[in-house]
Amino acid sequence: MGLLYSLISVGEAVEAVVKNSRLSIGVEEVDLLNASGRVSAEDIYAPYSLPTSNRSVVDGYAVRAEDTYGASQSNPVELEVIGRVYAGGEAMELKPYTAIEIATGASLPPNANAVVMYEDTSRIGDKVLIYRSVAEWGNVSRRGEDFEAGSLVVGRGTVIKPWHIAALASFGFSRVKVLRRVKVSIMPTGSEVFEPREPKPLDGGVYDSTSYLVYSYLSMYSYLDLMRVNPKPDDEKIISESLRDVLEKSDIVITIGGSSVGKMDLVPKVLEDMREAKIVFRGVAMRPGRTVGAGVVGGKPVFMVSGYPVAALASLDLVVMPSIRRMLGISELGRSRVKAKLTRRLVNTTGYTSYVRVKVFKCGDELYAEPLRTTGSGILSTLIRGNGVVIMPPEVEGYDGGSLVEVELLEPVSQHN
Amino acid sequence: MGLLYSLISVGEAVEAVVKNSRLSIGVEEVDLLNASGRVSAEDIYAPYSLPTSNRSVVDGYAVRAEDTYGASQSNPVELEVIGRVYAGGEAMELKPYTAIEIATGASLPPNANAVVMYEDTSRIGDKVLIYRSVAEWGNVSRRGEDFEAGSLVVGRGTVIKPWHIAALASFGFSRVKVLRRVKVSIMPTGSEVFEPREPKPLDGGVYDSTSYLVYSYLSMYSYLDLMRVNPKPDDEKIISESLRDVLEKSDIVITIGGSSVGKMDLVPKVLEDMREAKIVFRGVAMRPGRTVGAGVVGGKPVFMVSGYPVAALASLDLVVMPSIRRMLGISELGRSRVKAKLTRRLVNTTGYTSYVRVKVFKCGDELYAEPLRTTGSGILSTLIRGNGVVIMPPEVEGYDGGSLVEVELLEPVSQHN
Repeated sequence: MGLLYSLISVGEAVEAVVKNSRLSIGVEEVDLLNASGRVSAEDIYAPYSLPTSNRSVVDGYAVRAEDTYGASQSNPVELEVIGRVYAGGEAMELKPYTAIEIATGASLPPNANAVVMYEDTSRIGDKVLIYRSVAEWGNVSRRGEDFEAGSLVVGRGTVIKPWHIAALASFGFSRVKVLRRVKVSIMPTGSEVFEPREPKPLDGGVYDSTSYLVYSYLSMYSYLDLMRVNPKPDDEKIISESLRDVLEKSDIVITIGGSSVGKMDLVPKVLEDMREAKIVFRGVAMRPGRTVGAGVVGGKPVFMVSGYPVAALASLDLVVMPSIRRMLGISELGRSRVKAKLTRRLVNTTGYTSYVRVKVFKCGDELYAEPLRTTGSGILSTLIRGNGVVIMPPEVEGYDGGSLVEVELLEPVSQHN
Repeated sequence: MGLLYSLISVGEAVEAVVKNSRLSIGVEEVDLLNASGRVSAEDIYAPYSLPTSNRSVVDGYAVRAEDTYGASQSNPVELEVIGRVYAGGEAMELKPYTAIEIATGASLPPNANAVVMYEDTSRIGDKVLIYRSVAEWGNVSRRGEDFEAGSLVVGRGTVIKPWHIAALASFGFSRVKVLRRVKVSIMPTGSEVFEPREPKPLDGGVYDSTSYLVYSYLSMYSYLDLMRVNPKPDDEKIISESLRDVLEKSDIVITIGGSSVGKMDLVPKVLEDMREAKIVFRGVAMRPGRTVGAGVVGGKPVFMVSGYPVAALASLDLVVMPSIRRMLGISELGRSRVKAKLTRRLVNTTGYTSYVRVKVFKCGDELYAEPLRTTGSGILSTLIRGNGVVIMPPEVEGYDGGSLVEVELLEPVSQHN
């Protein structure tokens, strides 16, 4: 148990990777429609105010608000209609005690400061009767109300969402500068690990499923450009050559399996023998995924994660993705969190960060979180059942059954259990 | 106000689209790695049990559990070690009062029914001392424990997640049958709407931002294949030709703008004049988005949504996507939901479904939902600020300020407000 306290924390692991890596990710310009999920490479400010002018938000009559004061159903105000203006049309000047018919979206005529809706008027020839007074700027969307010129629309490092795209389009932007996608190669290892080819039982060994999990899990990040190679056997020469090859084509490499301190522990050994290479850490105080390691070759990070699916996911969520976000300067929110009642006690190992997959379900009006058994066996089927993760920080000894805990949701909670 | 009750409900709208459409979406086989987010076209059952045999989950000695009963630190049981088995290796038969050294992942030898960990043994030549008894099937992952042969792994209509991909890979599947991606064309309309080309103020009119919003919002659904055309002016002939053209290339069309009952109401008119075409509904009792309509041309649905961004989103969430899911037989969970305290009163129009964008934030230990002003103005900037939606069903009159409401999260809640 002496090993426990010699392991670094999750935070230190991320820190160490960031400090030792020298990623060089360029900038590219993409079509706005293809920018969803990419990382903005610059602060983008509003080039002008939106709306560009005071605009009517209804169909009706542009007026001077003060000319309508006192108007009521029984005592309407009568104004002379001197013209009409459409969206995009030219507006004449409004004179006192006149009105100009106006369409939704049209700019207010000079001197007008409010719009009366058709519903509150009746028209007789070139006169309009106004049955309800309107306040200054009533039914008007004012210049700069959506964005003031010079205000920040999208910050550098923002993962671009549909609303950012719409805002940029509304200014006329058709392209946007984003970080080039980060090339991440995934390399499964292990002589017992075989490439899935057809659904037939294997005589010895297992089909590679963890690299499929890692690949598809990371594919939700549009700012990553993923590549995967076939499983490599436990052969120093083959692993070394393959690693060199994928490093050439990638910014980051994730190896899977072979990171434990057992007999087949080849990846760290291969790394140590490479030029310009350095082991950054081996082992992190977390469960599962304790065997995660990282090295750097020529400034490029190589993450070594476990072949066990849940351990691999824990490493991605707690070490790999936080490191990548830090290196790229990405400000991205974590996952949605809910509070749920634990169905049974969870024990933590002091000094460790625990990553516990749970099934969150609704019962009556309450949410419950059932910790899933994910070690040893039943792993993939429970992964399918699970929809959340409870992360216990190192200082926590555990949570009692029935206590309310915060759960990060990986998938929505089913409304029917 | 008489109009209120003549509008159909959100549910009826979906029903009507489904009933009147005849979508024909074929099946294709894709590489498992590219199956993330696609819709499974068949029920996939476990072709055999996993694990395929009883396997050790530790490094140690395979034994007959009964031979270890009574073993303790002070009174160990002594067994003869008759061999060794690795993962994928051939196993000899276990005889009573013997043990076989076994590696993690290796199949249990015939007659063995438990594994003792190295930590609970000591080795002296070809004898092993066992200091702790092990229960039957202790440290063993049993055949079929993850998946029993014949059990359902992925159901038809499931949106495929990373865990499904990992499970399929673990059986050796390398490809999977999925629904062909549904071709959805997005067609903005309106003579005042211009294609974004450069960030310069427009003299008259506005840049198209809503179709950019709709496109990027729908792009999170990997089972859709999106296409967008440039904005079409309010010209019957142009809209008719363009609609014909996109219908030819698509399974579904979404037109944006021009669906209100105003002067420029060309899309429904054009639809009515087309062959094999039919208006399914015009207007739904929902706010915003009341003007949403749908037609069918040759069995293909055409959704007509508002040019206002939030109204368009409401139509997508409440009408368009539910219709698409129903037509494809997709079982997909909704969004993550949290309970949050309303910062102010929300009023519903009786008989309407209200779709209210909110900003959910954490203050102390509590979640609050602040309804955002999204009509008239400030639309895009508040869209960026918002992260959730409160949906008020037609029978609800409103929610009081301070009451706990359910919020569908569009983005995670910031931990720092």
